[in-house]
Amino acid sequence: MRFTSLTSADGVTERSFTLDDIPGVLWTPHTEPTALVLVGHGGGQHKRAPGVAARAARLAAGHGFAVAAIDAPAHGDRPRSAEHERIITEMRSRMAGGGDPVPLLAELHTLLAAQTVPEWRSVLDALGDLGPVGYWGVSLGCALGLPLVAAEPRIRAAVLGLSGTSLASAEAAAGITVPVRFLVQWDDERVPRQEALALFDALGSAEKTLHANPGKHEDVPGFEADSAVRFLAGHLGRLG
Amino acid sequence: MRFTSLTSADGVTERSFTLDDIPGVLWTPHTEPTALVLVGHGGGQHKRAPGVAARAARLAAGHGFAVAAIDAPAHGDRPRSAEHERIITEMRSRMAGGGDPVPLLAELHTLLAAQTVPEWRSVLDALGDLGPVGYWGVSLGCALGLPLVAAEPRIRAAVLGLSGTSLASAEAAAGITVPVRFLVQWDDERVPRQEALALFDALGSAEKTLHANPGKHEDVPGFEADSAVRFLAGHLGRLG
Repeated sequence: MRFTSLTSADGVTERSFTLDDIPGVLWTPHTEPTALVLVGHGGGQHKRAPGVAARAARLAAGHGFAVAAIDAPAHGDRPRSAEHERIITEMRSRMAGGGDPVPLLAELHTLLAAQTVPEWRSVLDALGDLGPVGYWGVSLGCALGLPLVAAEPRIRAAVLGLSGTSLASAEAAAGITVPVRFLVQWDDERVPRQEALALFDALGSAEKTLHANPGKHEDVPGFEADSAVRFLAGHLGRLG
Repeated sequence: MRFTSLTSADGVTERSFTLDDIPGVLWTPHTEPTALVLVGHGGGQHKRAPGVAARAARLAAGHGFAVAAIDAPAHGDRPRSAEHERIITEMRSRMAGGGDPVPLLAELHTLLAAQTVPEWRSVLDALGDLGPVGYWGVSLGCALGLPLVAAEPRIRAAVLGLSGTSLASAEAAAGITVPVRFLVQWDDERVPRQEALALFDALGSAEKTLHANPGKHEDVPGFEADSAVRFLAGHLGRLG
């Protein structure tokens, strides 16, 4: 893992890193971190998207957690493979023709998940022990996070959601056993409500809580994000 | 309103009262109350059931709120009318014959709601101004609370749930405009999941959040009740 830049502001240090060809960012508080939260960004976003950076600052400055984000394959600073290009091109042409992009989007998510799970695990190895580990990822970050959280025993709690059974793996969800906060937008224009509920239903965790609010995919209320931060803090903090 | 007894312990004063023929309890903190929460008990329970008393103590001692509970008609210290007896007897005989008690239970809830809404409003009048008002009622307390919260402009936030469209009025739900926390038990043996979701859907409030946890009707996790207390405190407290 090679750190390539360092900035510091408002009690948080931000370091860019690369591990093999994976670009990432590590945010740390100015005190010894008490836990590490991995943040998986949304579709079309990247490791330093405004929502990711704001959440990282909140977790680091407010709770003393380290936070790591990486670009998912084909996102941010990462190249698209021929396979990525094929799916994205087909998806665009299908949408232009008024067709349903979901089967191709699901195919893309499956491809990206297979690539990113071992990447996240190698990042975890390289970061070393920064305390108990949590995961935060909704939308694409949920589809890629489900197999990661299921596979990685170091992850002890996860915030997931804004996805459904057509876009993410219910089989991976069934393999998860740690506490999960699952976010649903009641009027989500991208995720059919019943598919979101079915994905929550599929989660194997004994402790899982669904929080649903009115509004579209991007309209998660600020109080809900704050509550999810407290959920992670409760499970990863000193009492966790 | 006539106060008939007074006890005090752990920073909370508990007074029994009667207003006309309505028996109730008022819990107050030892400081000036900053808000008032009305608690509607569950079916077969009463104004001083363990869950009601524990919640009242938490709200009074922990948040400085006054809390009032009354016996619903045909519950606790209150007599059953001939009409109550008829429905309850029919319900028992139908259940003994393996039939579906839900239509009769819904009839009972409608009858009790018509009786208890004006009772709660006269209790509010008699208690005078104790600050902004909230309502907490799940199960029967939700079925009776929906028309109360819809009708009573003094109520500014409500915790509802553990009920569905067969047992409670979706029409009353549609008349509610204040922030609502709505609790769902994912494996509720008394409330079909889709009916609970449909009742949440029917709520007219712009700010409403559904929280669903695994488990049966009586298994609401402690952290969820704590979170609902914080929800009320946030809406009724000094910032509310």
